[in-house]
Amino acid sequence: MESVNIKKLAQILNLSISTVSKALRDSHDIGKATKEKVLLLANELNYHPNPHASSLRKLKSKTIAVIIPEIANNYFALAINGIESVAREKGYHVLIYLTHEDFANEIAFARHLNSGRVDGVLISVAKSDTDFLHLHELKRKGLPIIFFDRVCEDFDTVKVITDDYESGYLATKHLIDRGAKKIAHLAISKDLSIGNKRMKGYLQALLDHHLPIDESLIVNCTNEHDHDFELISELFKKQQPDAIFAAVEIYAITTYEVCRSLKVNIPHDVKVIGFSNLQTAEFLNPSLTTITQPAYEMGKAAATMLFRALDKKMFQLSDENIVLRSTLIERESTA
Amino acid sequence: MESVNIKKLAQILNLSISTVSKALRDSHDIGKATKEKVLLLANELNYHPNPHASSLRKLKSKTIAVIIPEIANNYFALAINGIESVAREKGYHVLIYLTHEDFANEIAFARHLNSGRVDGVLISVAKSDTDFLHLHELKRKGLPIIFFDRVCEDFDTVKVITDDYESGYLATKHLIDRGAKKIAHLAISKDLSIGNKRMKGYLQALLDHHLPIDESLIVNCTNEHDHDFELISELFKKQQPDAIFAAVEIYAITTYEVCRSLKVNIPHDVKVIGFSNLQTAEFLNPSLTTITQPAYEMGKAAATMLFRALDKKMFQLSDENIVLRSTLIERESTA
Repeated sequence: MESVNIKKLAQILNLSISTVSKALRDSHDIGKATKEKVLLLANELNYHPNPHASSLRKLKSKTIAVIIPEIANNYFALAINGIESVAREKGYHVLIYLTHEDFANEIAFARHLNSGRVDGVLISVAKSDTDFLHLHELKRKGLPIIFFDRVCEDFDTVKVITDDYESGYLATKHLIDRGAKKIAHLAISKDLSIGNKRMKGYLQALLDHHLPIDESLIVNCTNEHDHDFELISELFKKQQPDAIFAAVEIYAITTYEVCRSLKVNIPHDVKVIGFSNLQTAEFLNPSLTTITQPAYEMGKAAATMLFRALDKKMFQLSDENIVLRSTLIERESTA
Repeated sequence: MESVNIKKLAQILNLSISTVSKALRDSHDIGKATKEKVLLLANELNYHPNPHASSLRKLKSKTIAVIIPEIANNYFALAINGIESVAREKGYHVLIYLTHEDFANEIAFARHLNSGRVDGVLISVAKSDTDFLHLHELKRKGLPIIFFDRVCEDFDTVKVITDDYESGYLATKHLIDRGAKKIAHLAISKDLSIGNKRMKGYLQALLDHHLPIDESLIVNCTNEHDHDFELISELFKKQQPDAIFAAVEIYAITTYEVCRSLKVNIPHDVKVIGFSNLQTAEFLNPSLTTITQPAYEMGKAAATMLFRALDKKMFQLSDENIVLRSTLIERESTA
């Protein structure tokens, strides 16, 4: 491939070499529109400045993007703290984008990032993702991308995950050990890596302990509170499960709400366990048994790998899974 | 009405067309005084640039910045949801910057924003802010800035706040009504608008009800969990307060932790009330009496005002306070 240099950029844009050079250095002499035009083309043609040229440092935005589904979820709050602890040390800004589980938002952000405003991306994908072309496009443009928690499994890069299958198995086995026979699973989308694995762990634990698999005990929650409240209420009225395994924190809290409204006693009538990083889990009434993820550590690991790539001139992110273990913390809700 | 164009503006101001054009584009070539003169007149004459002019659309980043101290705080999680509900409708991206209460971070972000990557800023200031020059600089550059929750009172712009003084008064009066005589206040920095007002409400309620003001009952918490745990433990050991008014959510939760470790019973030995938007407040053991802020609505109001400015070519944000009321929700912790 023919190498792209400043002269080439200048020719295409019909600008002087000095103007292009100044634009790349973000000089005050150059208007915003011109700068954007230059940066856009430089990005498109995959222009790499001479590493000895002073302009190189200036091209770095010193910013990384973190794309997550939501923040009213303690996992992500803690993961971001982990990410920022690393970024701060490196003198980088962290920009946070929320997808609200919306695929269209994720695509729009990816396009936005395409304009070269960040140096790298950490992402936990939206529930509604149907493909990952937008992320492949970013990678093709040379932007390092690392997944954490919710990953795209076919994507060749670093993925920081927890042991979702084992934890799902362990949570279900814990309920079985406590005498539960009719265990419902409040599931997050099967299309999501974490949803799929947690569900598989649940199913395998039932099989291994000779409990029947009953589709009507698996509820696909939606993340819309009122709708989930309805779904879980229906589950209790129709199936009367004696235990609940919630795939994410918010479903466990909604279960508490449903139980209160239906006067179902936790843990006497139903035992509850959920994936959760809720700081107040131990102060809930009853205190909530949780599978607690190493959220801060996962954020830290993801950011560390990203900076390992950014620190090198030519990075290459290997296709590997970094697995950090979650912990089952027994409390009153499964007593 | 005769349409106003750049030529007309130039004539009236006795400037060249190019100078006026550059001033409207906020070019670095033009001095501050000239820019202000041009903008003032443009505003006065209701100047609307030619919508077909290519540069104008391109200049919009279609992005707003939200600068907040932290996200492991349910107030900000909800406020951001409110902000995004408005931004989404307008087709704008929201970038979130976390200061972690660090003034240096806030300044760094402001510099970053200076490069023209966002169209407007919504900010809730860091606890350690000592001045607001960095924000004045952004405003001078023509970036609309709106404060929410934690505001800079001397800054001429829209501020979306809640009734912090009245709520602080109400919280304290509620504890007095429940028989408390020795009410401690877990305070957030007095330099912070919200901290100052909540504290003043507390002090006035004590005065009005003929209770002594005791400095040793006012604890300035730090937001570092272990340190705050120590401070609050000391308070209980030395002062044995019969009630706690926590200025922010996290201090109330830390109080629960301290009470558990010291075997102090809530509400029997000590009553607790706190500002909080915690979804699980009613499921805590005991359930927590809260002053609940209209977080979502505050975010929505701030974003709505920002877009009102952005929708116009020449915006002018008036200096006004938009006050939304908080609600005292009685629960078991003050029974």
